[in-house]
Amino acid sequence: MNRADLPPAARVGDPLDGVDTPALLLDLDAFERNVARMQAAADAAGVALRPHAKAHKCPAIALAQVERGAVGICCQKVSEALPFVAAGVRDIHVSNEIVAPAKAALLARLALHARFSVCVDDAQQVELLASATAAAGSRLDVFVEINVGQDRCGVDGADAVQRLLDAIAAHGELRFAGLQAYQGSLQHLRGHAERRAVAARAAARAADVVAGLARAGVACPVVSGGGSGSVEFDLVSGVYTEVQPGSYVFMDGDYGRNEYTDSLRFEHALFLATTVISTGGGERIIVDAGLKSLAVDSGLPDVWGAAYDYVAASDEHGTLRPRGATTPLLPLGARLLLVPGHCDPTLNLHDELIGLRGSTVEAIWPVAARGLSR
Amino acid sequence: MNRADLPPAARVGDPLDGVDTPALLLDLDAFERNVARMQAAADAAGVALRPHAKAHKCPAIALAQVERGAVGICCQKVSEALPFVAAGVRDIHVSNEIVAPAKAALLARLALHARFSVCVDDAQQVELLASATAAAGSRLDVFVEINVGQDRCGVDGADAVQRLLDAIAAHGELRFAGLQAYQGSLQHLRGHAERRAVAARAAARAADVVAGLARAGVACPVVSGGGSGSVEFDLVSGVYTEVQPGSYVFMDGDYGRNEYTDSLRFEHALFLATTVISTGGGERIIVDAGLKSLAVDSGLPDVWGAAYDYVAASDEHGTLRPRGATTPLLPLGARLLLVPGHCDPTLNLHDELIGLRGSTVEAIWPVAARGLSR
Repeated sequence: MNRADLPPAARVGDPLDGVDTPALLLDLDAFERNVARMQAAADAAGVALRPHAKAHKCPAIALAQVERGAVGICCQKVSEALPFVAAGVRDIHVSNEIVAPAKAALLARLALHARFSVCVDDAQQVELLASATAAAGSRLDVFVEINVGQDRCGVDGADAVQRLLDAIAAHGELRFAGLQAYQGSLQHLRGHAERRAVAARAAARAADVVAGLARAGVACPVVSGGGSGSVEFDLVSGVYTEVQPGSYVFMDGDYGRNEYTDSLRFEHALFLATTVISTGGGERIIVDAGLKSLAVDSGLPDVWGAAYDYVAASDEHGTLRPRGATTPLLPLGARLLLVPGHCDPTLNLHDELIGLRGSTVEAIWPVAARGLSR
Repeated sequence: MNRADLPPAARVGDPLDGVDTPALLLDLDAFERNVARMQAAADAAGVALRPHAKAHKCPAIALAQVERGAVGICCQKVSEALPFVAAGVRDIHVSNEIVAPAKAALLARLALHARFSVCVDDAQQVELLASATAAAGSRLDVFVEINVGQDRCGVDGADAVQRLLDAIAAHGELRFAGLQAYQGSLQHLRGHAERRAVAARAAARAADVVAGLARAGVACPVVSGGGSGSVEFDLVSGVYTEVQPGSYVFMDGDYGRNEYTDSLRFEHALFLATTVISTGGGERIIVDAGLKSLAVDSGLPDVWGAAYDYVAASDEHGTLRPRGATTPLLPLGARLLLVPGHCDPTLNLHDELIGLRGSTVEAIWPVAARGLSR
């Protein structure tokens, strides 16, 4: 017997209660509403939507987003793009820098199969891309990443961008496509007003660079950035021409703890099904989902629709406590749904996503880019 | 192009510097010393060694442990055992409870291919195992799990064990094999004296149950438990006849922060290779390894042999800072080794482990049980 002999966690048509746990579930109704709501908001703002596939790593979801109107997707690593190209996604932005020749060679080969863009923040990266595209006989769109407040990747100011544009212009295989302006650290600021203020500062920094380039006679075709926590501000900023939210399709526990005040609110669509496997002799609630089924970097999961708290995670166990003295313990075999604290790394733990329509399994989607971090 | 078109991260014979990053590395010399040291300590104590495979999920490592003298392995989930059975491991203890009929059926079928044992702490689990083994025509060894201080799974006291023994005895397919007595929460207590004291209390609780059963005329063939943080005490406790350490093969950052005073000390053997992909315009150190390459539940990784601190992780990025004002920033393409904070869930992110002899790739081992949490 081998891995292939493991019975599937679920089959299409199974009831939710028949799904073997732990299992990652997608509420298809909520998911579809989330996809439609974000697309409608982008359309209304006249801003392109390029969802980030690092959140889901799932070609079926990318195709649903593109079918609804997304201009393409983002990936965070070159290798991550492979299953999306195989599934037919034809416009992929790698929202990150690369410095390894092997990665540049792969990207240049991928660019023979789809339109690809990638970020730079150093002339050395430009030269690497030029060599790789020349060798592969392909072309790449290049975004210059600017630092708009996260202090991670990206250069500061129009002059630094201009120096990279000069480097890009020296190579016929490369084309300046725009600015990458992502502020990741603002996405999880809880207060709506605080998040709006930091998003406004990020947009202002991007606008300064666009204006500086314009004064030098350089047009900036695209300004791409934003995430699920800032998109309501980014769409109306007048600066971003394209937004890159990812988590909105699922809404994890951490985003759910943000304070939202307007209509661009998304629904929890991602759940982890878990089962009580021990009552510890009748005194506790121990479930079968721990660190290997749930990412806890942004906090422990919430228990969905039931008065219990998930209070401790070990590798393959979770400990729950009743909330309030009158809430009963749970019997062996009781099933619960958890809302993961952080969806992106949770998806990266699972090989499939089980899509439910109501309480019936309708689809089983491979998380085909799971583990592709190179 | 698809996932299969991703070039391998390394080939046997490649130099360390040629491995595409992020990549999980095993220092084979340190690993082999760790395996030998633990086996020698168990042999000297006359205690059986049954390493926990949840730490590595890697059949090649399990086979190395068994070849050196381990009596078998532990798995934490039934599905996790599949690739180990396929690789030829013939003695597997599932150190956990199961309540789902599908899992019991799989376990009962696996028991046709190898000796299997599993834990119970409720009569309902016993009945489930009896039905499944009867249907499959197989036999299972059953351990009763006792709570020795972690307050997770397990019953308290000899009377509760005795009631489960009566349930087990009613079924010819099941055989009482011993007690599971694991105290997980003591493994990471930092102070040596504190860890020794809590380990002694756990052993005393197990000894009380063994004595209570003996007074009732019940022999307890095996008392199994212990982990990498307590094994030095467990081996000489006079209570445990079998120990279940897992992390000692790798020694993660968190275990490395424990205080050790005696000779049963293990070496860091597990590293994540990472590359500087951005200097943020010359002011920062941004590497290509984040939450999707490293588990951070037990803290951020340590930087190996270099005066830098890994201070922030996002999905696919890490931010490093020089330790001290005179330490320089690093250039693009600079490579570093990280020591993961927690090895078990880090292994669960990777499909392969690249074994190095010195600075040359000697082996590439599939992490074949990655993701098998059912």
